[in-house]
Amino acid sequence: MSTTTVSAYAAPAPKAPLERVTVPRRPVGEHDILIDIKYAGICHSDIHQVNEDWGQALFPMVPGHEIAGVVAEVGPGVTRYAVGDRVGVGCFVDSCRECDNCLAGQEQYCAKGMSATYPEGSDGQPAYGGYSTHIVVDENYVLGIPEGIGLAEAAPLLCAGITLYSPLSRWDAGPGRKVAIVGLGGLGHMGVKIAHAMGAEVTVLSQSLRKREDGLRLGADHFHATADPATFTELAGTFDLIVNTVSAVLPLDAYLGLLRTGGTLVNVGAPADSASVNMFSLINGRKQLAGSMIGGIRETQQMLDFCAEHGLGSEIETIGVEQINEAYERVLAGDVRYRFVIDTSTF
Amino acid sequence: MSTTTVSAYAAPAPKAPLERVTVPRRPVGEHDILIDIKYAGICHSDIHQVNEDWGQALFPMVPGHEIAGVVAEVGPGVTRYAVGDRVGVGCFVDSCRECDNCLAGQEQYCAKGMSATYPEGSDGQPAYGGYSTHIVVDENYVLGIPEGIGLAEAAPLLCAGITLYSPLSRWDAGPGRKVAIVGLGGLGHMGVKIAHAMGAEVTVLSQSLRKREDGLRLGADHFHATADPATFTELAGTFDLIVNTVSAVLPLDAYLGLLRTGGTLVNVGAPADSASVNMFSLINGRKQLAGSMIGGIRETQQMLDFCAEHGLGSEIETIGVEQINEAYERVLAGDVRYRFVIDTSTF
Repeated sequence: MSTTTVSAYAAPAPKAPLERVTVPRRPVGEHDILIDIKYAGICHSDIHQVNEDWGQALFPMVPGHEIAGVVAEVGPGVTRYAVGDRVGVGCFVDSCRECDNCLAGQEQYCAKGMSATYPEGSDGQPAYGGYSTHIVVDENYVLGIPEGIGLAEAAPLLCAGITLYSPLSRWDAGPGRKVAIVGLGGLGHMGVKIAHAMGAEVTVLSQSLRKREDGLRLGADHFHATADPATFTELAGTFDLIVNTVSAVLPLDAYLGLLRTGGTLVNVGAPADSASVNMFSLINGRKQLAGSMIGGIRETQQMLDFCAEHGLGSEIETIGVEQINEAYERVLAGDVRYRFVIDTSTF
Repeated sequence: MSTTTVSAYAAPAPKAPLERVTVPRRPVGEHDILIDIKYAGICHSDIHQVNEDWGQALFPMVPGHEIAGVVAEVGPGVTRYAVGDRVGVGCFVDSCRECDNCLAGQEQYCAKGMSATYPEGSDGQPAYGGYSTHIVVDENYVLGIPEGIGLAEAAPLLCAGITLYSPLSRWDAGPGRKVAIVGLGGLGHMGVKIAHAMGAEVTVLSQSLRKREDGLRLGADHFHATADPATFTELAGTFDLIVNTVSAVLPLDAYLGLLRTGGTLVNVGAPADSASVNMFSLINGRKQLAGSMIGGIRETQQMLDFCAEHGLGSEIETIGVEQINEAYERVLAGDVRYRFVIDTSTF
């Protein structure tokens, strides 16, 4: 077993258009799996990474952490998967496995830092993501994709799906609970589907009513425009849980006013700038402002099983590799319903 | 039964020194209790109210919502208390009794607004607080003070005690949990006592080490100065729960950094100005920023029973009515360990 060279699409430098490259993949080790990647989702964070919006990164950068494919080869110690299995990889491919968080199945909060799928492993070496034909990953960080979800529709679940499933599950979306999803994009549309499947009464809070039809079709019971100030008086004190998927600084006090006593506003969208909040907005009604980031391996598998059981996948537009740069433009313009997925057979 | 006139101490106008007055108390109605007030605590919020820090208020104002006394007379429909019973009154004396929150025993978050003990009832009429010899309150808003707590030590429990007990109870302070109390004042010292009695490992985070001896004596296991930047590196990722009792705008990101994964920072101190918080401080480690305000009647009774069981009362300095204005100065100067309680026999 030796290092192999595989086709990929990479940004050669910060903010540069992506182009065809080849990158090395490590030999398939004792517990490794070689995955024949079939589809890779385009996450908004891929664009942030390429643009170095979150700080300096390693280049050339192969983005992609919403990976779905088929097992092509397994190391001798692999027990969880076999050649031919449908599998996925999300935002991380390793962690310390020893800290309290890893032991609790919360590897995303690993005390030593999870090893990201890209652009940089925890060893400081470049790590190449899913815009590629193959990837080698330790079996413990590979998810099984159940029959009943297409691989293309499953790919975005590995980031967008778990990012919404985790807070909806933790803060008890379910029958009798009123849940609002702020923003109907790649993250938000999965929030609507999952919260609806969990049995909650779902409201979309979107800037305008432009996507109303879509929202209701995806499972929302109500749809309101946040550009309309009446929304904030009409819906005051309504929700048990609000999940904000928008990466902009929200007027938090206004959104906290939409919560019932004991309610929680969870941010999964992550603006770089700080937000302002008045403590009285939290004190009056014992409210919570929280954050949440993807999920652990165990929880991600639960999410995939849940989605399969309920027939949920992402709403996607499948593209060839040549369309990646155009797709980035369209993501930035908000012109995607709701996730671009790269068909890697076009490499 | 008719309106009676009782002695009290009132601020005649905003920011004015308090002075002796007489105020009316309503006739003892069907479900009312006439309480012979023995002690009234001085809460920092009394001073905020007198100074109109929280907006326009009614004057003359008789402050006081930490009231302990003895039942002097009961209305014909009263079933919960009898003449001679030791009782207390806290921050509110009525609520709508019909909304979800009232029905759930969370009258402090009454949808129509709880009827405050002072300065204004929910009917918009002046309401006179506990710096007085007597008060008339509906039996459903009166607490029983168990034997085993002195009335003077019990008075501050009606606000300071429940303000800390409620979040400590809700966010699971207890064995195996690490709890920090920010600020060792009237509120904070009760937080230390209660969290310790609940079985948590308690840390005081105080501006300096000046009150260290006191903190340890009251039940803290550790004591750190927040003026020392090393505190924030040394204790990073330590606490399951932090309760902030300080009414100043905190550097929230720094305090959130002290929480473990899934931890909660609860504010019971309420600065008028907004605070700044970066969503990444919440997202990294699925943390929560929350608020909490006193407690409902049922929970307040639980707190009093808990304190009696564990022999907890407030640390107090008892004063006569003539010393109220001086006490206000000393509270503002932080010169009280830890609560002034007015002995109303000095009226």
